[in-house]
Amino acid sequence: MEKSTFLYEKIAEDLRSQILNGLLLANEKLPSIRNICSKYKVSMSTALKAYYDLESEGLIHTKPQSGYYVNPIRKLPALPNVSVPSIDMGNEDPSILVSKVYNEVNSNHVMLSLGVPAKDFLPLHKLNKIVCSKVWQLDDHGSGYENLTGSANLRRQIARMSYDWGGQLTEDQILPTSGCTAAMAHCLMALTEKGDTIALESPVYFGVLQLARSLGLNILELPTHPQTGIELEALKKSLLKNKVKLCLLISNFSNPMGGTMPLEHKKEVVRLMEHYHIPLIENDMYGDLYFGNSRPVNCKAFDESGLVLLCSSVSKTLAPGYRVGWLSPGKFADKINRVKFAHAISSTSLTQEAVATFLEKGRYENHLKTLRKTLQHNSLRYMEAIDQYFPDHVKVSRPEGGFMLWIELAKNVNTADLYDKAIKLKVSIAPGRMFTFQNQFNNCMRLSYGLPWNESTHQAIKTIGALL
Amino acid sequence: MEKSTFLYEKIAEDLRSQILNGLLLANEKLPSIRNICSKYKVSMSTALKAYYDLESEGLIHTKPQSGYYVNPIRKLPALPNVSVPSIDMGNEDPSILVSKVYNEVNSNHVMLSLGVPAKDFLPLHKLNKIVCSKVWQLDDHGSGYENLTGSANLRRQIARMSYDWGGQLTEDQILPTSGCTAAMAHCLMALTEKGDTIALESPVYFGVLQLARSLGLNILELPTHPQTGIELEALKKSLLKNKVKLCLLISNFSNPMGGTMPLEHKKEVVRLMEHYHIPLIENDMYGDLYFGNSRPVNCKAFDESGLVLLCSSVSKTLAPGYRVGWLSPGKFADKINRVKFAHAISSTSLTQEAVATFLEKGRYENHLKTLRKTLQHNSLRYMEAIDQYFPDHVKVSRPEGGFMLWIELAKNVNTADLYDKAIKLKVSIAPGRMFTFQNQFNNCMRLSYGLPWNESTHQAIKTIGALL
Repeated sequence: MEKSTFLYEKIAEDLRSQILNGLLLANEKLPSIRNICSKYKVSMSTALKAYYDLESEGLIHTKPQSGYYVNPIRKLPALPNVSVPSIDMGNEDPSILVSKVYNEVNSNHVMLSLGVPAKDFLPLHKLNKIVCSKVWQLDDHGSGYENLTGSANLRRQIARMSYDWGGQLTEDQILPTSGCTAAMAHCLMALTEKGDTIALESPVYFGVLQLARSLGLNILELPTHPQTGIELEALKKSLLKNKVKLCLLISNFSNPMGGTMPLEHKKEVVRLMEHYHIPLIENDMYGDLYFGNSRPVNCKAFDESGLVLLCSSVSKTLAPGYRVGWLSPGKFADKINRVKFAHAISSTSLTQEAVATFLEKGRYENHLKTLRKTLQHNSLRYMEAIDQYFPDHVKVSRPEGGFMLWIELAKNVNTADLYDKAIKLKVSIAPGRMFTFQNQFNNCMRLSYGLPWNESTHQAIKTIGALL
Repeated sequence: MEKSTFLYEKIAEDLRSQILNGLLLANEKLPSIRNICSKYKVSMSTALKAYYDLESEGLIHTKPQSGYYVNPIRKLPALPNVSVPSIDMGNEDPSILVSKVYNEVNSNHVMLSLGVPAKDFLPLHKLNKIVCSKVWQLDDHGSGYENLTGSANLRRQIARMSYDWGGQLTEDQILPTSGCTAAMAHCLMALTEKGDTIALESPVYFGVLQLARSLGLNILELPTHPQTGIELEALKKSLLKNKVKLCLLISNFSNPMGGTMPLEHKKEVVRLMEHYHIPLIENDMYGDLYFGNSRPVNCKAFDESGLVLLCSSVSKTLAPGYRVGWLSPGKFADKINRVKFAHAISSTSLTQEAVATFLEKGRYENHLKTLRKTLQHNSLRYMEAIDQYFPDHVKVSRPEGGFMLWIELAKNVNTADLYDKAIKLKVSIAPGRMFTFQNQFNNCMRLSYGLPWNESTHQAIKTIGALL
């Protein structure tokens, strides 16, 4: 399923992985260029390109007339623990905390709490141009309702993209929606009734908690690993013991913990869903933001029974305010179409068409290339700063994509209190308690590295460190 | 509550009303200009302006050296009957018929079935210009999420508009939404649970039926008058006898029947809601499209207890595809905000800001002036054609605003069959059965006069007449 990559990318990835996994230590000398040439059978310029890349990522540095050395990013902080939510359904709604954090959005603050990339990272100039040309080109200038199934252009482009994540969807398997939240809402409304139980990761994106609560659903939070996502054994047990109506998972670079389900886990989850005849709502909004060589596949790629409902959007990669998302409803297309029509009629025509054109012209792929590099670079800078300024016992996730860090502090730290102190110093964090209905994660927080790495973000991390 | 009007408008309105109510008959001579001048104490040019207006509406014509005469619009067709839905909750879902009608949207057909004004009537050139300037001006170019309460500009403009319909809302009493359907959906989700009963007009806009169905609500369709809307006695009885969770009404120029609740009815409905402590979801999307001298007020204007939730949008007046609507949630603001956030996060920033600017610059009011004249002119042309080509026994509503005609045919006519025949001749109508969950209105249909009056619409009416 890997896409063809350039050789220099392969070399860089090998070395990167050795550095990040501690196989190459701080200040250790890297293999010589000559060495790389002979090992990988490449030209000197290819080997150099790999090293330049690692240098620009801040992973290595050169000493004149000596060679390349690993930067002192020191050992990485330990990983957060696998979560151990209670078996009881939680019932402690964090929505007051969520409202507090999101009501204090302020452009003068360093908003490490936000779940969107900074506008500096978005191709807004190019998008503006497309919007302005579309608004004159479109037959009705974007003033009319879309047809019932949504923009045909957008559906075609999404179907094309599906080949990148191992899918082979056709355009009639795609339903555009007003963002990924609306997509998940349509799925939940079509497939659940008040009182049903749904299984989720823990910690889980608070928007899903609020959606489930508004529909009167019970929530089963399951143990989750910071690198491999939901724990399969726990999921199996819960399916055996509980009456679970459906599962909802973020399969790649999950929000907030950052884990990515390994390919075998994805297959196994799909197998489990088929065995128990349970739908899986899969959110794959972050999958395009991978740091490795190729995009991770998603569960939908293994869906033969139509039980997987894939939800996604461009809100984390392009323009949250455009409200352009979609879902691929598997065998539930009729139900989902009815819900979408009843609750929304149509999405905003103009922004749907603009995104379709952006995709069609290959600009999305170009933009993602830059964005991925920037975010990977940021992730390393943020981790370094956390290592430098936070207490020694801090545990930090190591996402391989996306832009969220999940941070676990000493048991006695309360991040809701920390939020109050930090916001006075104009730094906003997302306390861990926002991501659960249970009394847990009080010593955790989510930090976004979707902001530019500069003196202000550097100081913000230092400020949090000092408060700790 | 009337706005100040020009004297010539008052004169025109008096004569128009006499003509439409049959007090001035076809070919009858109108009062002389001199007569009007002395009666209303106005100048000759003012009197002439009133007559020019009526002439351009096609109501009167001039005979050289003789004076003005009433055009032979003949007597108006009789009004449709007050609806008599069954007391049982209906359970016959018309959604297959609705899908059929809306899947056959075709730009080569004469779409008399659509519930939106033709794009020829929309100020698309001006809107395009605003979109293009906003997309560059906005701080984040419309790429970001709105804040939780929605665009402040839009809220301020809607609050200003509220003075036109007798309200005095402040901007913090307005919540922008992605269209009026989303506004109604938020209200129903916040205030009802599966199995609850809601009281509606009958016939009722099919979107409300589908929404209620998707939420598992029982629907109580109540007798409705083609001119004065829901029958108050029937409403009172149902509130006394049934466990009604809330009412949902279109108070002005209702879709599909066209009725407008008289001011006293509006007051009485609000009083009833207060008496029974029942919320009223009031849809007032069509109120701006009045043909009289001033905008009719809505129920929200009399709401002292906060039980009225007003829902509206610019989808019937400006740009359906922009998805710009709003609601004023009365005392349910907290609940409604939570539902909106959970299901949608935010609306499309760019189109919200564009509409706010359009309103701010006074362009909306200017546009409405033209649109109202056009629609009133159309309504007369359509009624004339129906009178000319349809069977004698046809009954037709007489809306004083909006752009829908409700037509009742002989008992033995089945408009679902008529649809099938008409669509083969490239004319699309909306069969009456779409607007109820009961086995009624099979001999009714809704025709939109939101299309330009030209040879093609003329022929379309003739075609339907021939099929009948």
